[in-house]
Amino acid sequence: MDFLQLARTRQSIRKYQDRMVEGEKIENCVKAAALAPSACNSQPWKFIIVDDSPLREQVARATWSAVVPINKFTLQAPVMVVVVAEGGNIPSRMGGKVQNKDFQEMDLAIATQHFCLQAVSEGLGTCILGWFNEKKVKKALAIPENKGIGLMISVGYPEGKTPPRKKRRELKEIMSFNRY
Amino acid sequence: MDFLQLARTRQSIRKYQDRMVEGEKIENCVKAAALAPSACNSQPWKFIIVDDSPLREQVARATWSAVVPINKFTLQAPVMVVVVAEGGNIPSRMGGKVQNKDFQEMDLAIATQHFCLQAVSEGLGTCILGWFNEKKVKKALAIPENKGIGLMISVGYPEGKTPPRKKRRELKEIMSFNRY
Repeated sequence: MDFLQLARTRQSIRKYQDRMVEGEKIENCVKAAALAPSACNSQPWKFIIVDDSPLREQVARATWSAVVPINKFTLQAPVMVVVVAEGGNIPSRMGGKVQNKDFQEMDLAIATQHFCLQAVSEGLGTCILGWFNEKKVKKALAIPENKGIGLMISVGYPEGKTPPRKKRRELKEIMSFNRY
Repeated sequence: MDFLQLARTRQSIRKYQDRMVEGEKIENCVKAAALAPSACNSQPWKFIIVDDSPLREQVARATWSAVVPINKFTLQAPVMVVVVAEGGNIPSRMGGKVQNKDFQEMDLAIATQHFCLQAVSEGLGTCILGWFNEKKVKKALAIPENKGIGLMISVGYPEGKTPPRKKRRELKEIMSFNRY
């Protein structure tokens, strides 16, 4: 299996068919996420699958901005996923403190991308969302006060033409040997 | 192509054969990393491939700790990769500030994992390293003062038996529907 082929297929999808997503497919995506590596194997994630109306619409609207018209497409997504930051274990938190890095954020990002890569295998489209009103989402889903939200994901069957490819930096720009 | 299969195969590898890694394989890994999504498409990464002695050993030793015996295995890795944090673009930085998230760290983590997933396809083993002496590595590789290091990766052909699988949290623990 060539991962590069899958990576080339994956794109952020912002248009979805008005069609339910099978529970088994979502479960496979979470299974793939569960296999992501994490600092000190802390696995600091929980995936809340939101597919019930009107909760789903409420969560979708929480990704909108009052200032700029972003994320309006989420209202059409049949599934919204909320990736909860569970806190991590003590070694990973201590290590992050010393290294001045947020290992939990990194772990959640990788697990989220595992979810999205499996979604490609399932014929689904996803978009990772980093902009949302955390307070509103936490209240809507009864997420405990001491937990945070790392990212959100919109999920559905892609609708219409494949979107144009995002421009990528060239290999010679992003790769060097033995010095910067 | 089923990503889940690849995710099940991937493991952190800490024992390497005394065998060079072909440049083309490393290039494919960077190509896969380049296709990772990033906040506002900022692609805030650069991959420095370190395979020259004694620079490689110097960089490997910079992942060791003076207090606990971690990362000693890196000295045997024929390739060390340093993932430089390039700073990101203005929208992603501003968005991160408002959302109180470090999108650059998340972007680098995902791109790093893309590298490691392609490595599996190439028959290579990798281990992501979040613990290192940033100052020493920056000096060794002439990384500019204003750039940071997100993560490092050790790379090589796996040696010996497949390591025992890490214990994973159960699906019912990490997945719920419509509420926490």
